[in-house]
Amino acid sequence: MTFRGADVATPAVVIDLEILERNIAAMARFARERGVQLRPHAKTHKIPEIARLQLAAGAAGLTVATIGEAEVFAAAGVGDLFIAYPLWVEETAAARLLAVAGLARLTIGIDSAESAGQLARALGDDVGRIAVRVELDSGHHRSGVLPRDVRAVAEAARAAGLAVTGVFTFPGHSYAPGAASAAVVDEQEALTAGAAALHEAGFRDLMISGGSTPSALLSSGDTLTELRPGVYVFNDAQQWELDRCRPEDIALTVESTVVSHRRIAGAPEALILDAGSKVLGSDRAAWATGYGRLLDQPDARIVALSEHHATVEWPAGEPLPPRGTRLRVVPNHVCLTPNLVDEVQVVRDGVHRGSWAVAARGKNS
Amino acid sequence: MTFRGADVATPAVVIDLEILERNIAAMARFARERGVQLRPHAKTHKIPEIARLQLAAGAAGLTVATIGEAEVFAAAGVGDLFIAYPLWVEETAAARLLAVAGLARLTIGIDSAESAGQLARALGDDVGRIAVRVELDSGHHRSGVLPRDVRAVAEAARAAGLAVTGVFTFPGHSYAPGAASAAVVDEQEALTAGAAALHEAGFRDLMISGGSTPSALLSSGDTLTELRPGVYVFNDAQQWELDRCRPEDIALTVESTVVSHRRIAGAPEALILDAGSKVLGSDRAAWATGYGRLLDQPDARIVALSEHHATVEWPAGEPLPPRGTRLRVVPNHVCLTPNLVDEVQVVRDGVHRGSWAVAARGKNS
Repeated sequence: MTFRGADVATPAVVIDLEILERNIAAMARFARERGVQLRPHAKTHKIPEIARLQLAAGAAGLTVATIGEAEVFAAAGVGDLFIAYPLWVEETAAARLLAVAGLARLTIGIDSAESAGQLARALGDDVGRIAVRVELDSGHHRSGVLPRDVRAVAEAARAAGLAVTGVFTFPGHSYAPGAASAAVVDEQEALTAGAAALHEAGFRDLMISGGSTPSALLSSGDTLTELRPGVYVFNDAQQWELDRCRPEDIALTVESTVVSHRRIAGAPEALILDAGSKVLGSDRAAWATGYGRLLDQPDARIVALSEHHATVEWPAGEPLPPRGTRLRVVPNHVCLTPNLVDEVQVVRDGVHRGSWAVAARGKNS
Repeated sequence: MTFRGADVATPAVVIDLEILERNIAAMARFARERGVQLRPHAKTHKIPEIARLQLAAGAAGLTVATIGEAEVFAAAGVGDLFIAYPLWVEETAAARLLAVAGLARLTIGIDSAESAGQLARALGDDVGRIAVRVELDSGHHRSGVLPRDVRAVAEAARAAGLAVTGVFTFPGHSYAPGAASAAVVDEQEALTAGAAALHEAGFRDLMISGGSTPSALLSSGDTLTELRPGVYVFNDAQQWELDRCRPEDIALTVESTVVSHRRIAGAPEALILDAGSKVLGSDRAAWATGYGRLLDQPDARIVALSEHHATVEWPAGEPLPPRGTRLRVVPNHVCLTPNLVDEVQVVRDGVHRGSWAVAARGKNS
């Protein structure tokens, strides 16, 4: 089952192109049928080739998290970018934003009168070249304002000369077992209330944007006009364990080699893989069964993870695969994985087709 | 207190050169006084400039985790390298190892007769050019063999033509509150028993190597002839919380900007920083107080971390620093942080002195 088409050293990040294309097509079809615009979050993949597949399937543009990501995707020809982040913009950042705005339609997030004022001051005479959307806190309690405060932020932005073109939220509290449906209700309520408050204040033609991967397919479209899922292109162990995808929908795995066996008294037999936190990332939600999953042995458990070792407890009664065996690991949170490598290997029908550069790797600012 | 000497965007990884040099000198002095050789683990920093400081202070060579790291440091002129990892070596890897062995004295880890045999076969006629050390499991239960099995592995390696030049262990179970002293005892016992077993089998002039950062300064030197700490150059929030360093010994921080405030009913006031898991890493031990610490506000708690947001609960009664404020975050596990950036900023006396490339970033294989 594993990728042997080329002599690529492990650990290697491998993308199955057929599954990737199927995932992209399915989300595009869903958005089309619901009549909402799709603006995938590119922080998950950071790869221009994947962005082009998303746009070819009908995406209206991309979402990114940082100015650096916007720079990469604007340079790659993406014509519409939304930095879904409440940036604090000083002079250097303003100059970078304006350079991006010379290549693409650019919108950024704000969540306070202070950040709107700071942005407008930093942009100076160019204040009209970058639009803003106000971020709402729909229950994740990270950045964003409550609906009752959205009007004040939008009016401050308007007074400072910024064009307010929408509201957005990230219902991150959908990432827990059984939580997605309730998070979608929270998301709808916050966006509906926020959009209504702005409508009352005279704002028109607002984009109403939401949607994480766990929640996107539950979104009704009654309120939302845009979805921003990211993980859906690859899926990961979290989506698998949340029952938001099937194992056959997982497009990205980390090909790894068994380097050691652990056989100690009082503990299940385990093998050690050469994939660790420096390629998988070390996110582990409280509800996760381990530090990732093995695609071809769902009953195995990754019970410990260090930088270059995964300790995998093997199902009782199953023989441990010998050293040198290659196994495919599904990361818990796939957004961390492409960011840890310079390139990903691309496979179709089990045959190595080449590699893609992770062009926006490390673009944290 | 924060680094304002240059217009560097946040999040930025910043190294205080004075503290770095002090940490390097202190560990070098400790090793010298104990009469053991120091072979720092370079996976922590991945930076040739720091390797040179370690060697100039008396380090005998470097420890690395992967062939890719060995390639980078050999090319940078480091003449003695130990890959402290039980590599499974196929043909391509063997060719890479031999290229490194053309530049530096090279030793690698083994922990089974199978991996020794595989290595010898892959090296072919060049089997004599790379030495091996047998890895012991001293209680961390990751890779490595128990002392009772070390002789069989070493004899298999010798029979295959490999030079066995030592034993090594990583007492990773020292990374917990109050655990370091007991882990040091385990380490000594395992290394003493392992070395004795090899001595009985006729192996001589063995390097007996141990020492994580939490345990290194507790090592007595009676058994060990080499220490391999990595984290000590920078220290981190884990070492701080384990009381293995003081805050003033922390040489690496992530300069971050306050981008938002969280004020919601029923929760402490919090601020949101633009540093997340994509620059800090997301390791969080069960005993950690959060996802890192704030160097200048020890009572703050990083209660949530996403890719580009840290949610920092602020001490009650203290005013939240305004948006745009820069704060210094100490990562929980610093080995993950340089690996997430292309370069680090170097500061001395609060003044920006330039940057260093993280030359071995992403070298996972």
